[in-house]
Amino acid sequence: MPDDMARPLVRGGGGSRHLEASLSEPGAPVVGILGTGDFSRSLARRLVASGYQVVVGSRNPKRLSALFPEEAEVMSQLEAAGHADLVFVAVFPEHHSTLSQLKPALAGKTLVDVSNGLQINRDGPSNAQQLADLFPESFVVKGFNTISAWTLQTGPRDGSRQVFLCSDHHKAKSAVTQLCRRMGFVPVDMGFLSSSLEIENIPFYLFPSWHIPILCTLALFIFFYLYNFTRDVLHPYITERKSVFYKMPIETVNVTLPSVALVMLALVYLPGLSASYLQLWRGTKYSLFPNWLDRWLTRRKQFGLCSFLCAVLHAVYSLSLPMRKSARYKLLTAAFKQVKQGVEDSWVDEEVWRMELYLSVGIMALGLLSLLAVTSLPSVANAVNWREFSFIQSTLGYGALFMATLHTLLFGWDRAFSWDQYRFYLPPTFLLVLILPLGALLGRLALVLPCVALRLRQIRRGWERSQYIRFTLTDGGCHDRLEDASAV
Amino acid sequence: MPDDMARPLVRGGGGSRHLEASLSEPGAPVVGILGTGDFSRSLARRLVASGYQVVVGSRNPKRLSALFPEEAEVMSQLEAAGHADLVFVAVFPEHHSTLSQLKPALAGKTLVDVSNGLQINRDGPSNAQQLADLFPESFVVKGFNTISAWTLQTGPRDGSRQVFLCSDHHKAKSAVTQLCRRMGFVPVDMGFLSSSLEIENIPFYLFPSWHIPILCTLALFIFFYLYNFTRDVLHPYITERKSVFYKMPIETVNVTLPSVALVMLALVYLPGLSASYLQLWRGTKYSLFPNWLDRWLTRRKQFGLCSFLCAVLHAVYSLSLPMRKSARYKLLTAAFKQVKQGVEDSWVDEEVWRMELYLSVGIMALGLLSLLAVTSLPSVANAVNWREFSFIQSTLGYGALFMATLHTLLFGWDRAFSWDQYRFYLPPTFLLVLILPLGALLGRLALVLPCVALRLRQIRRGWERSQYIRFTLTDGGCHDRLEDASAV
Amino acid sequence: MPDDMARPLVRGGGGSRHLEASLSEPGAPVVGILGTGDFSRSLARRLVASGYQVVVGSRNPKRLSALFPEEAEVMSQLEAAGHADLVFVAVFPEHHSTLSQLKPALAGKTLVDVSNGLQINRDGPSNAQQLADLFPESFVVKGFNTISAWTLQTGPRDGSRQVFLCSDHHKAKSAVTQLCRRMGFVPVDMGFLSSSLEIENIPFYLFPSWHIPILCTLALFIFFYLYNFTRDVLHPYITERKSVFYKMPIETVNVTLPSVALVMLALVYLPGLSASYLQLWRGTKYSLFPNWLDRWLTRRKQFGLCSFLCAVLHAVYSLSLPMRKSARYKLLTAAFKQVKQGVEDSWVDEEVWRMELYLSVGIMALGLLSLLAVTSLPSVANAVNWREFSFIQSTLGYGALFMATLHTLLFGWDRAFSWDQYRFYLPPTFLLVLILPLGALLGRLALVLPCVALRLRQIRRGWERSQYIRFTLTDGGCHDRLEDASAV
Repeated sequence: MPDDMARPLVRGGGGSRHLEASLSEPGAPVVGILGTGDFSRSLARRLVASGYQVVVGSRNPKRLSALFPEEAEVMSQLEAAGHADLVFVAVFPEHHSTLSQLKPALAGKTLVDVSNGLQINRDGPSNAQQLADLFPESFVVKGFNTISAWTLQTGPRDGSRQVFLCSDHHKAKSAVTQLCRRMGFVPVDMGFLSSSLEIENIPFYLFPSWHIPILCTLALFIFFYLYNFTRDVLHPYITERKSVFYKMPIETVNVTLPSVALVMLALVYLPGLSASYLQLWRGTKYSLFPNWLDRWLTRRKQFGLCSFLCAVLHAVYSLSLPMRKSARYKLLTAAFKQVKQGVEDSWVDEEVWRMELYLSVGIMALGLLSLLAVTSLPSVANAVNWREFSFIQSTLGYGALFMATLHTLLFGWDRAFSWDQYRFYLPPTFLLVLILPLGALLGRLALVLPCVALRLRQIRRGWERSQYIRFTLTDGGCHDRLEDASAV
Repeated sequence: MPDDMARPLVRGGGGSRHLEASLSEPGAPVVGILGTGDFSRSLARRLVASGYQVVVGSRNPKRLSALFPEEAEVMSQLEAAGHADLVFVAVFPEHHSTLSQLKPALAGKTLVDVSNGLQINRDGPSNAQQLADLFPESFVVKGFNTISAWTLQTGPRDGSRQVFLCSDHHKAKSAVTQLCRRMGFVPVDMGFLSSSLEIENIPFYLFPSWHIPILCTLALFIFFYLYNFTRDVLHPYITERKSVFYKMPIETVNVTLPSVALVMLALVYLPGLSASYLQLWRGTKYSLFPNWLDRWLTRRKQFGLCSFLCAVLHAVYSLSLPMRKSARYKLLTAAFKQVKQGVEDSWVDEEVWRMELYLSVGIMALGLLSLLAVTSLPSVANAVNWREFSFIQSTLGYGALFMATLHTLLFGWDRAFSWDQYRFYLPPTFLLVLILPLGALLGRLALVLPCVALRLRQIRRGWERSQYIRFTLTDGGCHDRLEDASAV
Repeated sequence: MPDDMARPLVRGGGGSRHLEASLSEPGAPVVGILGTGDFSRSLARRLVASGYQVVVGSRNPKRLSALFPEEAEVMSQLEAAGHADLVFVAVFPEHHSTLSQLKPALAGKTLVDVSNGLQINRDGPSNAQQLADLFPESFVVKGFNTISAWTLQTGPRDGSRQVFLCSDHHKAKSAVTQLCRRMGFVPVDMGFLSSSLEIENIPFYLFPSWHIPILCTLALFIFFYLYNFTRDVLHPYITERKSVFYKMPIETVNVTLPSVALVMLALVYLPGLSASYLQLWRGTKYSLFPNWLDRWLTRRKQFGLCSFLCAVLHAVYSLSLPMRKSARYKLLTAAFKQVKQGVEDSWVDEEVWRMELYLSVGIMALGLLSLLAVTSLPSVANAVNWREFSFIQSTLGYGALFMATLHTLLFGWDRAFSWDQYRFYLPPTFLLVLILPLGALLGRLALVLPCVALRLRQIRRGWERSQYIRFTLTDGGCHDRLEDASAV
C-alpha cells in the first residue's frame, strides 16, 4: 500500500551484479534514450539487464552519468542520436521542440514517445502525433507511457504488464514490440498512430466503468436510508416522543444495505433481459441496441460487485447486532418484565421459524454471491471457459437473485398485510425493494417458456423475421459464435 | 455478471477512430475471413486494429458490408480466398462443404478453423480434421474456438487470454501463432492436428475437475445432515415428544457443515500420504500409481476449496446463532428460571473454558484455511516459487488440519464418555468425523520418523530397492527434479 | 492443496493421443535432453507436444526408454549430443563432470542448464558458470530451474508461468527464448550469465519480503498481549483475587489484535511520509534514501496485508463474543441482579451511543481495508492503471487509517481521563496504540498545506534547492516520470 513512488529508483553505480557485463556483448543491439529523469534511468537499467547496449543522450553528460548504471554510456544528445537506431524520447512533451536540432541525426530511425500529458486530452493532437509532425522523417511509435519507472525496475517478477503500442510504421512497431517482449512486458498492438491519443489518456482514467454503478449505489443508499429513517426513527419520535436516534449508525444502515444490495443485483440482470425482449420484439439480432442499454450491458460486473459489497456489509452489520450494549439492555429489560409478569416462556413459534428461515436463506444467497464475486477476479475469470463462465454468471447468478429475493420475502413474512406497518402511510421498505427483483425473475421465467426460448435461440443463431431466407436450427450449443453459412 | 452475450457486438461503420487507417498501410499483411457472423465481425475489427488488412468473403457482400468496420473490404468468397494467404473459416461446420468450390483458390494457403461442435465429441473426427480432409492442399490450423466474440472485442485490456493452437504444418502454425500474439492473445501450442478434437471439446467442459469433489461434498452433507437430524431433532421428538423442528434450517446445518469441512480437509491430505506409503512399500518411484489415486491427487485443490467453503459457511452460521429469536427466547426463559430458583450466578467454569478454547482454535483454523484458499488463486499461485507453494500447501495445510481437528476434539471434550450422548445408540457426530483427520495426522507423523523420512527421500531421489546400482543421497533439497547422473 | 509432488508424472508409453505424431514432422527442430529423471521425462513430453523432435541421452537407453513418450527417441548420450543443436542438461550438478566426454560433440551448441543447488549459494560460482567453464566451446543458457516437473506437465492451461533466462551468448538465449515461448511459458530475460547465481537461488527463497513484516506483527502481538494480560487478567487477580483467566484465549487476544492491526497500518504510511520529509529537508530527490528506509518502502504491501489479517481476525473474534457461554452466564447474572434490585431498565445512553458509533466506524474501516487487500491481488493490481492504483493505495488507504484511528478513539471515549483505567499505573492500551497512527495522520495533513505541497511537487519534478538552474512547474500530473528537458 504505497504512499508515493517518490524515492530515487536507481542506485547509481551500484551495479556490482553486472560488473562483468559492463564490457557488453559486442553484437548486442544499441538503444538510445534522450532524457535523464527517473524514467530514463529505470529504462536504462532494464535495457542493460535485458542485454541491450544503452546510450543516453544528456545536455550535461558528465554531471549525470553517475546516476546511470555503469554499463550505459551517457553522452551528448547528438552523439546518442547518432549511435542508436531505436531511440526513446523521454523528455517532457513541452520540450520536444528543443530536440529539433537532432532532426538529421534521427532521420530514418525509430522514435519511441513515452510521454504523458498534464491532463486528459480529448481533442488531439496527441504528443506522439506532434512528435511525428516534428520529425517527419523518423518513425514514431507510441508506448510505455502507462508503465511507471517503478514497474520498469521491479517488473519482471511481477507478472504480465501490458504495454500499449501504436504506430503508422509497421517495421518500427515490430522492432519495439520485440524489445518490449524481451524486457518482459506484454505488448498490445493498438493499431495506427491515431490511437496514440487514446493511449496517452489511459493514465488519466480513474475507474471509468465504475462511475455509474457507484453513483447508482450511493443514490439508492441515500434514498433508502432517508426512507428507513423516516419510518423507524422519525415516526416513533413524532408520534410517541420516543427517542431512538441511537439506531442511526447501525440499525438504520443495516436495513438500508440489503435493500441497496438487492436492487443493485436486479439491475445486473435487467439489461440482459431487456436485450432479449428487444431482440424478440424486433425479430432480429442485426440491429443495434440503444446506447444506454449497450453501456449498461458492459457495466453488469460492476453493478454486481457493488451489490456484493453491500450484501457483505449487511452480513457483518447483522452479525454485530447482538454484541451491542443496546441489545444487552433491551434483553435485560425483557427479562425483568418477563419475571415481573410471571411468564416462564415467551416463545412464539412463528417468529422463531420466520427468523431461522430468512437467516438460513440469506446466508445461502451470500454464499452464492461470494462465488460470483470470486469468479469476477481477472485471474479466475481467465481460467474458466465460456460455458463455465456463463454457467456461473447466469445460472448461479439467477440462483443468487432468487435466494436474495426469497430472503426478503421471508423477512417480510405477512407484514405487508398489517396496517400498523404503514407508518406515515409509507409501505414497509421490503415492498419497494421487491419490485425490480421480482420483475427480473418473472421476466426470466417467461424466457424459459418453450415457444419463447426457441424463437430467441433462432434469432441468436441469425434468423430474421423479415429475411428472405428462413431457416431453423434446433440447438444453440455453438454459443452464438458463428454465422450460418446459408446466410453468408 | 452478464446474462448473455447476445447483443450485437460490432457497431457497423462507427470506426471514426480509424478513419485515417482506412487507407491501410500498403505493406500490412492481408488476412481473409469467410463468414459474416458476430465472430467474423469482432475478428475483423480486432485484426484491423492490430494493423492487418482484412478481406471478408460473403455470399451477399453488398448487404452485409455495413456491419463491418469500414477498413475491412467485404467481397465475394472467391475474391476473399484469392486475396489472402491466411484465411479464417468462420462458418458453421455443417456448412463447411459449401466452401468446396473455393478449393483451388485456397490451395497452399493457411486455413484457421475456429468452429465448435454442437456437443462434446469423444470419437472424432474433429471439425478441423474434416476441414483438412476437405482441403487436402491447404494447411489447416485449429484455434480461436475458445475465444468468444466478446473477448475478441474487449480483449486487449483484459489480461492474458490463451488461444490453443494445433496443426500438422509447422509453418502455418507459426504464422497463426504470430498473428495471435500480435492481436494480444497468448498462443498455446497443443501440437498436431490430432489435438484438435480435444481443443474443440474445451468449450463444452463444465468444471470437469470439480465433479467428484462437489459430489463428495454433497454426499457427506446429506449423510451427516440425516445423522444429526436423527440425533438432535428426531430423538427428542420420539423419546420426549419435544418438537425442536425449528432447528432444521440453522442448527442442524451448522453441526453438519464443520463435519463435512473436516472430512473433506482430511481427504486433501490422504492421497498424498497414500502415494508416499505406496512408494515406501514398493521401494521405488518408477512404477505408476493406480488410476484412482492419480486422479485423486490432481483434485486436491478442489477438495480443499470445498472444505474451505463449508468452513466459512459454518463460521457465518455460528456467528449468526445469538441473533436468532430462538436464542433470545431461550435466554429469557433461563433468566426466569434462575430468578425463580434464586441462583445468582450459574457460571460453570469447565463449560466456559471448553467454549473459549474451541472457539479460539476454530478461528485460527479458519484463518489458516483462508491463507490456503487465497494462495489457490491462479495469480497468487503464479507469484510464488515451488518452495513457497509447498510450504503453504504442506506446512500451513497440515497446520490447518491439526487446528481443525483440535477444534473438534475440544468441542467434543469428554462427551464421548457420557452415555446419554449415544442417542439411539448412535455415537456423537464428532467421533465419526475425527476418524479420517486423526488417521491423516498420525500417518503424516509416521513419515517424519527419521528412518522412514530418509528412505522416502532416497526413493524420491531415484533410489530403487531392486536396482543394481544403489546410492544414497543425504539431502533432497533439489526438490526431486533431477535424476542422479549415475542412473542416467 | 497438494501434499507432495512425488507421484510419477509421466505415464510411459500412454501417448495414444499423439500416435500419429510419432512419425514427427520432418522439418521439426531437434532438441536433446541429457538425463532421464522426472524433469527430463516431463520436459520430453512437453517438447513433443509442442512439435519438437526429441532425443534423450541416457547411459542405459534400453531400460529407460519405456518411461518416455514414444515419440521421443532414447539413445546414448553421445548420439543425443550429436543429433541436436540445443541440448538440455538435466543431470545433477555434482555429476556434470561425467559429461566431459561429450565436449567435442557439444562444441558450438547451446546447452541449457536446468539445475538447482542443494542450498542457497551466495558466493558463486553458480552451477551454470561451472558448466560454462567445463564446456568453453558451448553456449550455456541458464533457465527452467524454477519450473517443476509438475508444471511442465500441467502448465499450458495454468496461465502464465515465468521462465528466467540468462546467458552471455545472445543467439543461444534467443533460441531458448523462442522455444520457451512455444512451450507456453513466459521467458524473462535476466541478462548475462552472471545472473545465473541469482536465478539458481530463486527456488530457495521462502517469502523473503515477508520476513520483517511477519516478525514485526509477532513482536507487536507479544508485546500487546502481555500488556493486556497484565492489565485485564493479572490486575484483578492480584488486587481482588478475582480469577478471570478464562479471558486469555479470546478476550485478551481480541483486544490485542486491533492494536497490532492499527500500529501495522500506521507503519504502512510512515515510510512514505519519512521519504517526503527527507526530500523536503534535503531539497532534492537526487540523493539516495538510507538503506533501511529503502527496504521499508518496498515492504509496505506486506505490512498492509499483515494489518488486514489482524483486522479480519479481530472482526471474527468480536463477532463471536456474544455466542460464548461466558457471555451468557454474565447476562443471566445481570438479569438476576436487575430483578433483585427492581431496576426495570438499566439503559445508559452514553454507553449505547459509544458502542453503536465505534462498531459502525470499525465496520467501515474494515470495508476499506478489504478493498485495499483485494487490489493487492496480482491480477487485480495488473488491471488498474497508475492513477487508479495510487488512488486506491493512497486515498482509500489514508481513509482506512483515519477510520481505524477514529474507531479506536471512539472505543476509548473518555477513558483516558479516568484514573481507575491506569491499572498498575499502565495507561489504557488504546493510548499506546494511537501514537503512531495519529502521528501519520498529522504528518500527512502537514504535507497538504499549500506551501509544503507545492515545494514537494517541485522537488519531485526535478527541482533542486542547490541547483544552478531553477524552474517551477505548476502541475505534477505527469506522475514524476519524466525529466524536464531543460535539466537534461
